[in-house]
Amino acid sequence: MGIEQDLERKKGLPPGSLVYVGDEVASSTKISVIDYIGDDLVEKELDKIQDVYPYTKTNSVTWVNIEGLNDIDVFKEIRDEFGIHPLLIEDILNTEHRPKINILNDYVVMILKMVWFNKEEVEIEEEQISVIIKDQTIFTIQEKEGDVLDSVRKAIRQNLGKIRNMSAGYLVYSILDAIVDQYLFESERISSDIEQLEEDMVIDPDQTVLQQIYHYKNIGMHLRKLVWPVKEIIGGLEKSKVIDMNTGFYLKDVSDHIIHVMDTVEMTRSMAANLLDVYFSSVSNKMNEVMKVLTIVSTIFIPLTFIAGIYGMNFAHMPELDEAWAYPVVWGIMIAMTLGMILFFKRKKWF
Amino acid sequence: MGIEQDLERKKGLPPGSLVYVGDEVASSTKISVIDYIGDDLVEKELDKIQDVYPYTKTNSVTWVNIEGLNDIDVFKEIRDEFGIHPLLIEDILNTEHRPKINILNDYVVMILKMVWFNKEEVEIEEEQISVIIKDQTIFTIQEKEGDVLDSVRKAIRQNLGKIRNMSAGYLVYSILDAIVDQYLFESERISSDIEQLEEDMVIDPDQTVLQQIYHYKNIGMHLRKLVWPVKEIIGGLEKSKVIDMNTGFYLKDVSDHIIHVMDTVEMTRSMAANLLDVYFSSVSNKMNEVMKVLTIVSTIFIPLTFIAGIYGMNFAHMPELDEAWAYPVVWGIMIAMTLGMILFFKRKKWF
Amino acid sequence: MGIEQDLERKKGLPPGSLVYVGDEVASSTKISVIDYIGDDLVEKELDKIQDVYPYTKTNSVTWVNIEGLNDIDVFKEIRDEFGIHPLLIEDILNTEHRPKINILNDYVVMILKMVWFNKEEVEIEEEQISVIIKDQTIFTIQEKEGDVLDSVRKAIRQNLGKIRNMSAGYLVYSILDAIVDQYLFESERISSDIEQLEEDMVIDPDQTVLQQIYHYKNIGMHLRKLVWPVKEIIGGLEKSKVIDMNTGFYLKDVSDHIIHVMDTVEMTRSMAANLLDVYFSSVSNKMNEVMKVLTIVSTIFIPLTFIAGIYGMNFAHMPELDEAWAYPVVWGIMIAMTLGMILFFKRKKWF
Amino acid sequence: MGIEQDLERKKGLPPGSLVYVGDEVASSTKISVIDYIGDDLVEKELDKIQDVYPYTKTNSVTWVNIEGLNDIDVFKEIRDEFGIHPLLIEDILNTEHRPKINILNDYVVMILKMVWFNKEEVEIEEEQISVIIKDQTIFTIQEKEGDVLDSVRKAIRQNLGKIRNMSAGYLVYSILDAIVDQYLFESERISSDIEQLEEDMVIDPDQTVLQQIYHYKNIGMHLRKLVWPVKEIIGGLEKSKVIDMNTGFYLKDVSDHIIHVMDTVEMTRSMAANLLDVYFSSVSNKMNEVMKVLTIVSTIFIPLTFIAGIYGMNFAHMPELDEAWAYPVVWGIMIAMTLGMILFFKRKKWF
Amino acid sequence: MGIEQDLERKKGLPPGSLVYVGDEVASSTKISVIDYIGDDLVEKELDKIQDVYPYTKTNSVTWVNIEGLNDIDVFKEIRDEFGIHPLLIEDILNTEHRPKINILNDYVVMILKMVWFNKEEVEIEEEQISVIIKDQTIFTIQEKEGDVLDSVRKAIRQNLGKIRNMSAGYLVYSILDAIVDQYLFESERISSDIEQLEEDMVIDPDQTVLQQIYHYKNIGMHLRKLVWPVKEIIGGLEKSKVIDMNTGFYLKDVSDHIIHVMDTVEMTRSMAANLLDVYFSSVSNKMNEVMKVLTIVSTIFIPLTFIAGIYGMNFAHMPELDEAWAYPVVWGIMIAMTLGMILFFKRKKWF
Ligand SMILES: [Mg+2]
Ligand SMILES: [Mg+2]
Ligand SMILES: [Mg+2]
Ligand SMILES: [Mg+2]
Ligand SMILES: [Mg+2]
Ligand SMILES: [Mg+2]
Ligand SMILES: [Mg+2]
Ligand SMILES: [Mg+2]
Ligand SMILES: [Mg+2]
Ligand SMILES: [Mg+2]
Ligand SMILES: [Mg+2]
Ligand SMILES: [Mg+2]
Ligand SMILES: [Mg+2]
Ligand SMILES: [Mg+2]
Ligand SMILES: [Mg+2]
Ligand SMILES: [Mg+2]
Ligand SMILES: [Mg+2]
Ligand SMILES: [Mg+2]
Ligand SMILES: [Mg+2]
Ligand SMILES: [Mg+2]
Ligand SMILES: [Mg+2]
Ligand SMILES: [Mg+2]
Ligand SMILES: [Mg+2]
Ligand SMILES: [Mg+2]
Ligand SMILES: [Mg+2]
Ligand SMILES: [Mg+2]
Ligand SMILES: [Mg+2]
Ligand SMILES: [Mg+2]
Ligand SMILES: [Mg+2]
Ligand SMILES: [Mg+2]
Ligand SMILES: [Mg+2]
Repeated sequence: MGIEQDLERKKGLPPGSLVYVGDEVASSTKISVIDYIGDDLVEKELDKIQDVYPYTKTNSVTWVNIEGLNDIDVFKEIRDEFGIHPLLIEDILNTEHRPKINILNDYVVMILKMVWFNKEEVEIEEEQISVIIKDQTIFTIQEKEGDVLDSVRKAIRQNLGKIRNMSAGYLVYSILDAIVDQYLFESERISSDIEQLEEDMVIDPDQTVLQQIYHYKNIGMHLRKLVWPVKEIIGGLEKSKVIDMNTGFYLKDVSDHIIHVMDTVEMTRSMAANLLDVYFSSVSNKMNEVMKVLTIVSTIFIPLTFIAGIYGMNFAHMPELDEAWAYPVVWGIMIAMTLGMILFFKRKKWF
Repeated sequence: MGIEQDLERKKGLPPGSLVYVGDEVASSTKISVIDYIGDDLVEKELDKIQDVYPYTKTNSVTWVNIEGLNDIDVFKEIRDEFGIHPLLIEDILNTEHRPKINILNDYVVMILKMVWFNKEEVEIEEEQISVIIKDQTIFTIQEKEGDVLDSVRKAIRQNLGKIRNMSAGYLVYSILDAIVDQYLFESERISSDIEQLEEDMVIDPDQTVLQQIYHYKNIGMHLRKLVWPVKEIIGGLEKSKVIDMNTGFYLKDVSDHIIHVMDTVEMTRSMAANLLDVYFSSVSNKMNEVMKVLTIVSTIFIPLTFIAGIYGMNFAHMPELDEAWAYPVVWGIMIAMTLGMILFFKRKKWF
Repeated sequence: MGIEQDLERKKGLPPGSLVYVGDEVASSTKISVIDYIGDDLVEKELDKIQDVYPYTKTNSVTWVNIEGLNDIDVFKEIRDEFGIHPLLIEDILNTEHRPKINILNDYVVMILKMVWFNKEEVEIEEEQISVIIKDQTIFTIQEKEGDVLDSVRKAIRQNLGKIRNMSAGYLVYSILDAIVDQYLFESERISSDIEQLEEDMVIDPDQTVLQQIYHYKNIGMHLRKLVWPVKEIIGGLEKSKVIDMNTGFYLKDVSDHIIHVMDTVEMTRSMAANLLDVYFSSVSNKMNEVMKVLTIVSTIFIPLTFIAGIYGMNFAHMPELDEAWAYPVVWGIMIAMTLGMILFFKRKKWF
Repeated sequence: MGIEQDLERKKGLPPGSLVYVGDEVASSTKISVIDYIGDDLVEKELDKIQDVYPYTKTNSVTWVNIEGLNDIDVFKEIRDEFGIHPLLIEDILNTEHRPKINILNDYVVMILKMVWFNKEEVEIEEEQISVIIKDQTIFTIQEKEGDVLDSVRKAIRQNLGKIRNMSAGYLVYSILDAIVDQYLFESERISSDIEQLEEDMVIDPDQTVLQQIYHYKNIGMHLRKLVWPVKEIIGGLEKSKVIDMNTGFYLKDVSDHIIHVMDTVEMTRSMAANLLDVYFSSVSNKMNEVMKVLTIVSTIFIPLTFIAGIYGMNFAHMPELDEAWAYPVVWGIMIAMTLGMILFFKRKKWF
Repeated sequence: MGIEQDLERKKGLPPGSLVYVGDEVASSTKISVIDYIGDDLVEKELDKIQDVYPYTKTNSVTWVNIEGLNDIDVFKEIRDEFGIHPLLIEDILNTEHRPKINILNDYVVMILKMVWFNKEEVEIEEEQISVIIKDQTIFTIQEKEGDVLDSVRKAIRQNLGKIRNMSAGYLVYSILDAIVDQYLFESERISSDIEQLEEDMVIDPDQTVLQQIYHYKNIGMHLRKLVWPVKEIIGGLEKSKVIDMNTGFYLKDVSDHIIHVMDTVEMTRSMAANLLDVYFSSVSNKMNEVMKVLTIVSTIFIPLTFIAGIYGMNFAHMPELDEAWAYPVVWGIMIAMTLGMILFFKRKKWF
């Protein structure tokens, strides 16, 4: 509903108007920079976006991280200083945007989603992260504080691997790799959750399990919508000339992971569909069992009750009633009928 | 049925005969023009189509909006004055035409659908809008008064954004953008409606909910049919040379929105399909519950009634009947049987 | 079965043997010609195919229409005089042939199906029509008398539109247009029929409606099989050089209609599938209602009957029987139990 | 199971080892040759494969037919004399091989399946036929005696059509045509069988019909697996240079038939799926009917039985029992209740 | 769960960190080499990877087989000595990696899965095998001891086929062929297992059979996930220049087998889906039968019991009770009603 209202508001504006579309109301926009080249490393929190310009003009790799989209002026400044197209800034501010890549002459803009599985609410949470790549400067623009990039920061700080000796393209790869590793992790979790559901189902298939399966199907659909476009984005990145290093190989590694995630999600969807069949069949079988109990009891006792009813009638002239052998004979007939019925049901394999 | 009659009527005519095919009976055809270039702006209602010619011969961007398709002479005049192919005019007058684009040497014709969600009738309403692009003149031809283009008019009138300083191609983009924003808005509404249905379903799954799901599936199918060809239309527009500016970038933005709409519609369809499964399962479960109640009551009381029937028989020689302990013993047997049954059902987890 | 026998007969013959494969037994083969160029028009019934040769050798457009495939000699003559490949004549005579196009150096052969919806038998009827295009001569070869081309004949006779001033390519387009307009008309009819079924279903879903849905699904499949290849045929025609005019544009118009027909057929199939779901759900709901009635009545009266049975027993020592208050108390218990049950069912929302 | 054992045996051997994989145990390998050019025709049974070499070295078309795969030496000889790759000979001897084509510099190998519908066992029977094309020599290698090529032999023997005046390529086409004609014939038979099932279903839908539908679905799947690759094979053949004549046209004719077969098989599968829906619905309807009968009878008689039970109680003080009007009044109440119930059911349309 | 933990651990490391991801805890890493060229053959177990270097520097084909991934130093040594990219070594150590191929300037890395069907647990077991191809050296790196390559070793040792006279490319082909032959073997086994299930189903369709079908569907999905990428891998191998021989032909043979496996797996999935339909229908039919028995018995005896109840009432004035003919007449009526019911059920074909 929030989205609809946002969209309603935007509909009256010309294209390229900067309006923040999203649910998050972060208190402020936080800017930080990590600037490195070889052994040199500067890491700082900044008060205003203009403080970042000195870093972007050097040869070092400059990673500007912006958290919170409320301060529209920051983005107007980026638009004007770095020559980013207004329509792209508009897209970055729209946190409901589909993942995509735009490759321009001298810069690239990517929109991606970070995901977390919220265990309490059994729901996929997402946060949009936009990446602007211009020369040796990388902007990452997020909805709010917190992300999946701490492993990248740690590698830069502690000089792990070769990141400190690589250009900005390697930083972009590292960011993508961290985001996609999270997809991998969450998709495996969903997969093992649904395997757990499968076992629960075998033990006790009830309506609750069904609704969980249904819920996981929706989660799978949601994850797929976020992950699917990333393959195309990596394809686009490979073709772009903005990234100067031989990234093709690195990007193929990320691409492998994306395909693995997609495989896992599809597998999950198929298993969920199969589980629904098993569920329905088990409901049918239970019904069958209930019906059999009813039918066996009814079929045995209703005819017996009728016979008892016969000899409960008050006709004056019922010769049998006066015979001494009659009562035991009736009992005999009743027992014979019961045994016959039981035999009949045995032969039908109802027991 | 109206369509069939229209088609029947048309079948007897040679191709290119101008006949209005549609449900709408607008009282008259209304023509208006907006002509602008930089700071100059003229906006006028016109009596006849010929009054528009002076504007179309200047360098300024001329937007001619025609509402109502009844006055065939207007379209014959356009056909002859602007050299539009009769088959295309025929298509414009057929308000049941599929969205499409025709790119010719010196002009382009697009047929699109505007959509609104009618809340009262829970139905997608559509209105065909055809766009003719020739040099700096843009015709928009609609079935009746009212459209989704007020944001475009406002931008021109109040000089918002850069539209007043751009050529006709940017106007075409703005019109497309406004139409597609409406798709986005309506698809989000349908999506949130179906999420509401999902919640209703959990609380009380009845036949009414089912028919609503079914109805929303049809709405999704309908919307998809209208939106799907627009992607291809934008692809065609990108390749055409009629639009002189660098529109590729702008059109990709519209294209992004179309993909978003398609994603939303597909998501909606999948959720509706899932909901049907949940519905059917819940119907089965209810049936199961009903059957259990019947079976439990019958299985407990039918045998008891039989025993009561036995001792209601009027045989002369039934020794038990005369014993003082017999009645309490029978009660005891009955209570024991009942407890046994309850235990049996408990172990089967029917309670 | 007729087809199988035809096929069996053909299997023993070498390829290119001319054998008529089909159900129709037309009494004779009827040949007629329409020859026109500008104001000149000749229309004639011919006794033998050789009479058509003078017309085919002039510059005028010559339309030869042949109805009935029994007279094999006519087709041998065409094969030899116009150099048509024997395998193609074989295909023309096989009225079960799939729609297709063959483009050769100096002529083109198309096989198409005309369709009619037979209201009485609620069935799609088809008739094969083959078109041979060679220079300015067009052959249309039909299984029997009657077709959908009267609008084309009328346009030629009354000089409507521009057909009289165009070459043979325009005639081919007009013929295709007339055939496809009929597809459009019949697909719309099927679509509105299924919408009618949808309304019937809501009012009274019974087995008859189900079988109609099933029948319409089959009709949709049948229509799709006939219409689908026409798109490819038009694509082939566009690429061929035999048709000398700028037909690309005209053919795209026909192509639009074909896509519209396909959309309608697909929509119909989806709606039919949805209706089946609604039907099955409504059957389940009815069953549920029946079960509830049974369960309510049984669950109330079976325990009461048991109580009545208790006091119908003939034990000598049943102290309650002699008490004056006993009978009203039993009634009281029975009424209380009934009210309890009703309350129980009310709380379960079974009423 | 036979296949598994064959595969197990083969797994231990290096690639290209010649081992016969298949179910058939033909007593011997039979070799025959037909050699023709214009009016010259030789037809002979041969004792050993070496006897065929004189024929293969002349200009005439030489058709060598080998029936039975047991005599591995024959195939080693062909491998060595004609330079056929060992892996291809291995494939020819594996009668479970998928249909395929291999085009090499100076020869072509095709693997195809001939099919027959076995009426008694209601099953598709297949026999692998491999075709080697080298210059003017054609080998056809079959699992056992008997094939679908008698029409080709007859055409050669009786000089029907133009086969005697054409090169080896035309013989290949004729063989393909004969094999595909059989597909056509069998697919039409399956199609008409399933239409028969449809009629049976309407009259009396029982479990037997269901299993037949299921069986025909499997047959359709099987046939599709055999036929589908043939389209690709023909495509490959068109591109190869081994066949020297203008076969493109002839092969397109065969291709048309393959598409027709595929259409028929798909149609069959859809109809089978539809029939399953109709079957399930009819089972549900029958259940509904059964339940209604039970419910109507129970709902009418259980309350009546209760009333009878009341007045069968033996309380000393039941004042009604002594009134003369009581018995008729009870009857009246019972009749009224019955009528009320009947009215209730009538209004629910259960009759 | 193990995977999730592995992934969690890896998330904090920079890309290219060598960490073993997998379930297997082999006690040690075992290295062996087979080195051959023509008649020369050396086969040895090695203590350390460095011992292999003398062999890799000669012209002979060197096959280094490594079993067990625990000794990370071995892989660091291979990375450094042979210049394999760290990201690829990382992939090789991740035994959950998707099958893939990486083609670099002077070497190729393939990741594949060997499969075995575990009969006891009715489960597909997989083991990852990575193949590094560099000049005439081939590394095969496996998770643990045991593989499907004994037929390749035997061919080398016993000089079967031409492997000893071919270059390393032929060895790669032989390895691929052996792995794919195992796929073929296991897919045929699954296929015949499911055919067995089909027969079991016809005899006695119970819940156990259903769960087996469901299980085999999952196995099919699993196998498909492993096999599907192999086609693409072979396509990549064909295009790479690392393999110097004319392998195209050999690889097409492997490719044929992969398609065969895919066909078999798809067939299996379709058959499993069909079996589910048959199962559900059989459950419905059984339910129908149960219901019929209940309905027949109830419908016959409930009305009879009512009649008996009537004449069990204790009204003082029930004239019939005193008539001598009354009792036989009531019997007559009861028998007539029973016969009527039986007739009614016979006409409904419930017997
Ligand atoms: Mg916008
Ligand atoms: Mg945008
Ligand atoms: Mg969001
Ligand atoms: Mg958010
Ligand atoms: Mg964040
Ligand atoms: Mg990664
Ligand atoms: Mg028309
Ligand atoms: Mg048109
Ligand atoms: Mg309309
Ligand atoms: Mg309208
Ligand atoms: Mg309007
Ligand atoms: Mg927009
Ligand atoms: Mg059911
Ligand atoms: Mg033929
Ligand atoms: Mg043909
Ligand atoms: Mg026909
Ligand atoms: Mg016909
Ligand atoms: Mg006709
Ligand atoms: Mg038309
Ligand atoms: Mg092999
Ligand atoms: Mg092979
Ligand atoms: Mg076989
Ligand atoms: Mg065989
Ligand atoms: Mg044979
Ligand atoms: Mg043929
Ligand atoms: Mg990594
Ligand atoms: Mg990797
Ligand atoms: Mg593993
Ligand atoms: Mg393992
Ligand atoms: Mg191993
Ligand atoms: Mg192999």
